[in-house]
Amino acid sequence: MDYRIGLIGCGTVGQGFLEILDRKREFLRDACGFEAQVVAISDKLKGGLLVPEGIDIPALLDVLGRGGKLADYPKAKPGQAEPLDPLDMIEKTDAGIIAELTYTNIQTAEPATSYIKKALRTGKHVVTSNKGPAALYYRELADLARKNKLQFRIEGTVMSGTPVFHLAESGLAGNEVREVKGILNGTTNFILTKMETEGMDYAAALKLAQELGYAEADPTADVEGFDAMAKIVILSNVLLGGAVKTSDVARKGISSISKADVKAAAKDGFRYKLIAHAKKEAGRVVAGVSPQKLPVSDPLAGVMGAQNALSFETDLLGRVTIQGAGAGKIETGFSILSDMLAIHRCR
Amino acid sequence: MDYRIGLIGCGTVGQGFLEILDRKREFLRDACGFEAQVVAISDKLKGGLLVPEGIDIPALLDVLGRGGKLADYPKAKPGQAEPLDPLDMIEKTDAGIIAELTYTNIQTAEPATSYIKKALRTGKHVVTSNKGPAALYYRELADLARKNKLQFRIEGTVMSGTPVFHLAESGLAGNEVREVKGILNGTTNFILTKMETEGMDYAAALKLAQELGYAEADPTADVEGFDAMAKIVILSNVLLGGAVKTSDVARKGISSISKADVKAAAKDGFRYKLIAHAKKEAGRVVAGVSPQKLPVSDPLAGVMGAQNALSFETDLLGRVTIQGAGAGKIETGFSILSDMLAIHRCR
Repeated sequence: MDYRIGLIGCGTVGQGFLEILDRKREFLRDACGFEAQVVAISDKLKGGLLVPEGIDIPALLDVLGRGGKLADYPKAKPGQAEPLDPLDMIEKTDAGIIAELTYTNIQTAEPATSYIKKALRTGKHVVTSNKGPAALYYRELADLARKNKLQFRIEGTVMSGTPVFHLAESGLAGNEVREVKGILNGTTNFILTKMETEGMDYAAALKLAQELGYAEADPTADVEGFDAMAKIVILSNVLLGGAVKTSDVARKGISSISKADVKAAAKDGFRYKLIAHAKKEAGRVVAGVSPQKLPVSDPLAGVMGAQNALSFETDLLGRVTIQGAGAGKIETGFSILSDMLAIHRCR
Repeated sequence: MDYRIGLIGCGTVGQGFLEILDRKREFLRDACGFEAQVVAISDKLKGGLLVPEGIDIPALLDVLGRGGKLADYPKAKPGQAEPLDPLDMIEKTDAGIIAELTYTNIQTAEPATSYIKKALRTGKHVVTSNKGPAALYYRELADLARKNKLQFRIEGTVMSGTPVFHLAESGLAGNEVREVKGILNGTTNFILTKMETEGMDYAAALKLAQELGYAEADPTADVEGFDAMAKIVILSNVLLGGAVKTSDVARKGISSISKADVKAAAKDGFRYKLIAHAKKEAGRVVAGVSPQKLPVSDPLAGVMGAQNALSFETDLLGRVTIQGAGAGKIETGFSILSDMLAIHRCR
């Protein structure tokens, strides 16, 4: 059997996913019994491709790797490599799965939400690593998917491809998850780690994070906790059954933490971490993001550098913590494959 | 639909599973769409029950909680509460799933292996928390299950119900797992933790572990690494595709670690942990159990007390670590429910 995939967005994550699809072609065929074909791509900057017979992935990655655009895809037949609006692409393609891989807009979740709705309304499963639609409209989109007997999957929105939603659905199934807390932003964890282990002050650690590409030129989304906020809203609503909005989250970042704070905490056996947390309380879910002093024996205290981790407090298993990558081209690209495999298992 | 279950062994794990089945009856019906009935139990010490209409679990747990035997089950009809050999039970019951919950014999894996084979040959799925059959005969039993279109599931053999095999099958699927290493024995980790954090010597920490019920009167299986050895053999063969035998595992326990060793390591920023490890090397899998000095930044170094943890080294996600309970009545009982849910998903 065949899975036909359309990509909206062909930046880092999209290209990571294409690379994985190519590397894992044999595994997918032999172990999973299917072939995955990418039949459509729409990217704001790179143009469009509509290739019903399937794109030659190595040939395309070669072009993109040399700075080329989709129009430079050497095997395109006339009319296949034209600028293509995502809504038109969804309309025209016979893909069964749309991977929505554009950038997060946490204010409006657009245009991604419109793309996702259109895909679900035209019979296509949706997989996304975009935090906007999952944070603002998860319930609505999940309902729309269910109504159409389709799936809306979001593994890549939290901790890249490190299993969070798969873990909850599979190995933890049967447990009630009462609380989650985690380190969901690698940039701030990198900064706090450098402040503790190398005695840097906040400004120097931030500058290093920027030089290494962990932090943006404007680091606000990371250091003031907006990125972690979007993720804890998603976890609140998907795992705890909440109806939490971004405006409900008490949010505090790390920019007010000084080298002296970190040093004093370490002396007492504690470590500062930016913790995103959500808990069922009296019939509702209460969520927040804040720097917390954890005892070094806490499973989250040992999470160093740009790593992420999430603890689930459950009724049967107690506390279960998963630690892994929180970002990265291949790591986030894998989340798309992982969600595709889940769709395959539920077919 | 209905799942009809037979239990071999009704000790701690069996009773934990019964308690969970009772607590989760509503969840199973509403969220999973099935009723689970326990229709047969065979226990060496407690006797037998063969109740095709389903055992009243609270009534049975009440009897067992007061030190009673299966013959004291108040709702038994004539002939239903008789001593019952497990092989006879498997023969006579119409259960679709057998939960094999007897004690591990790591030399012979018997009589559990005979029970499992009989169950698989008579059309019953098998779920077990017994390390013997999984460590000595995994491949053979998995092949027998496949041949009969049945499942042989073993989540509870490593880290109790904390997801290890479910994680590999679901959230990590698509990755090649190249190496695993973990803290798979809670007793030794408890002892090492007490030696480090409270400055106890080995003998005192062991005595405390015995008093708290973490260690047996004869602590050899834990402290000399036999328990961890069985678990790393299972992981080697199930997750890494190896053909490792217990005799292939280089094994060293913690009894030679002194308070001075632990203190000296801590001074240099290291922590002693009993690490079970297995790695693909030149076409084969090499496994061992040994105390290792880990830098405190290692994801396994922060695992304190009786907790367990396992790291997977993968080709796409890098290192992923899961930490949680390694033992316990409800935690191991949950592994049986978890495997039942997996059988349900694959039906």
